[in-house]
Amino acid sequence: MVVIIDVFRATSTIAAALHNGAKYIVPVDTVPKAIQVSEHLGGIAAGERDGKIAEGLQHGNSPLEYPSDFIQDKILVLTTTNGTRLLQLALDQEADTIITGSFPNLSAVVSFLLKQKKNVVLGCAGWKDRFNLEDTLFAGAVIDRLQDDFTIHCDSSLTAHQLYQQMGADLLEHAPKFTHYHRLVERFGLIEDIRFCLTADLSPVLPLYQEGMLVRGAFKGGI
Amino acid sequence: MVVIIDVFRATSTIAAALHNGAKYIVPVDTVPKAIQVSEHLGGIAAGERDGKIAEGLQHGNSPLEYPSDFIQDKILVLTTTNGTRLLQLALDQEADTIITGSFPNLSAVVSFLLKQKKNVVLGCAGWKDRFNLEDTLFAGAVIDRLQDDFTIHCDSSLTAHQLYQQMGADLLEHAPKFTHYHRLVERFGLIEDIRFCLTADLSPVLPLYQEGMLVRGAFKGGI
Repeated sequence: MVVIIDVFRATSTIAAALHNGAKYIVPVDTVPKAIQVSEHLGGIAAGERDGKIAEGLQHGNSPLEYPSDFIQDKILVLTTTNGTRLLQLALDQEADTIITGSFPNLSAVVSFLLKQKKNVVLGCAGWKDRFNLEDTLFAGAVIDRLQDDFTIHCDSSLTAHQLYQQMGADLLEHAPKFTHYHRLVERFGLIEDIRFCLTADLSPVLPLYQEGMLVRGAFKGGI
Repeated sequence: MVVIIDVFRATSTIAAALHNGAKYIVPVDTVPKAIQVSEHLGGIAAGERDGKIAEGLQHGNSPLEYPSDFIQDKILVLTTTNGTRLLQLALDQEADTIITGSFPNLSAVVSFLLKQKKNVVLGCAGWKDRFNLEDTLFAGAVIDRLQDDFTIHCDSSLTAHQLYQQMGADLLEHAPKFTHYHRLVERFGLIEDIRFCLTADLSPVLPLYQEGMLVRGAFKGGI
């Protein structure tokens, strides 16, 4: 089982859109594919490149762009870079279950993992092949809640947990240290996005990957 | 400038052997090359594979195998896997200065970096392409001492520093959590190696890469 984590902002946006009633979400890797698939399905094509809505699309990567009065019963075709590559990796490795996680759906992810009791890889998407703090902190938050029921098998999980113990009590206070914060807030003014992406359980939903789509999976406490 | 870090145990052994008087050290990537180069130079070929002295060699990767009454004025040809790959990466990227670091030569590394005042990449070798705690903690120790004079540019440095702040006061107490500790201590009984590799400044020396060799470089406090 693999949890795909891309806190700023793909997996936060996926949680928000699904929780706000999107029919399902199709993750794709390129802008042309987003346009093509959305036309085929009658969905909404969305995605950004370098912090701006990608050319040819009308909607971006912000979780705040998808309130229920806009996204309810619609299909969202979302193009992401880091997250989609990780999804492909999980598919190539024949992961039997793939879900996505971020702070807005932390408890749903934890509840699902506790119920399933399978080996879990917490897949941090990072940023352009580099380690980042926010994805690692989310992995640490999951480990913190699972530690009595699961065994940690690697130094990276231990580090993620230590980091979360140090910073988890007030993520917003620590956020200005993150490299990605500077890009999102100082360059693009997206402080509300940051707040949403770092706040636990605003979108209690379990995005489950099934045949090319992310759908609402069942978890204790909700569907 | 690149600091190559492979705490368990290549860069600890390099520090020990150079500090104990080795003429110089030649790092190579394969056992046959270690044998060939050592025969050519009249040196000592050393290296391990899977925790045992490699077939065809007489000496291993332990820093404790190289006291001065053995290694003084001799050439050590050391085959390592993770560390050598990182060295090659640094050479490919045309790093202008390459040194090696581990806890036994922590102060020498810090003093050299402070004097040089160049951009620094702290290159953690890891273990079979995976993140490990001990290399990251050494990077954190360096950052801890350089923080007033250098700017941190990435989330991984910030994490290394946070981790060191949490564990650095007593590394030996935290060592049993490291994945690598289990391999070295529980499988091979190398607790003395662990103690040496995690103790600061037992081998105050600055291993400097020059034309295929690691030689003693000058640093404030010693040569």
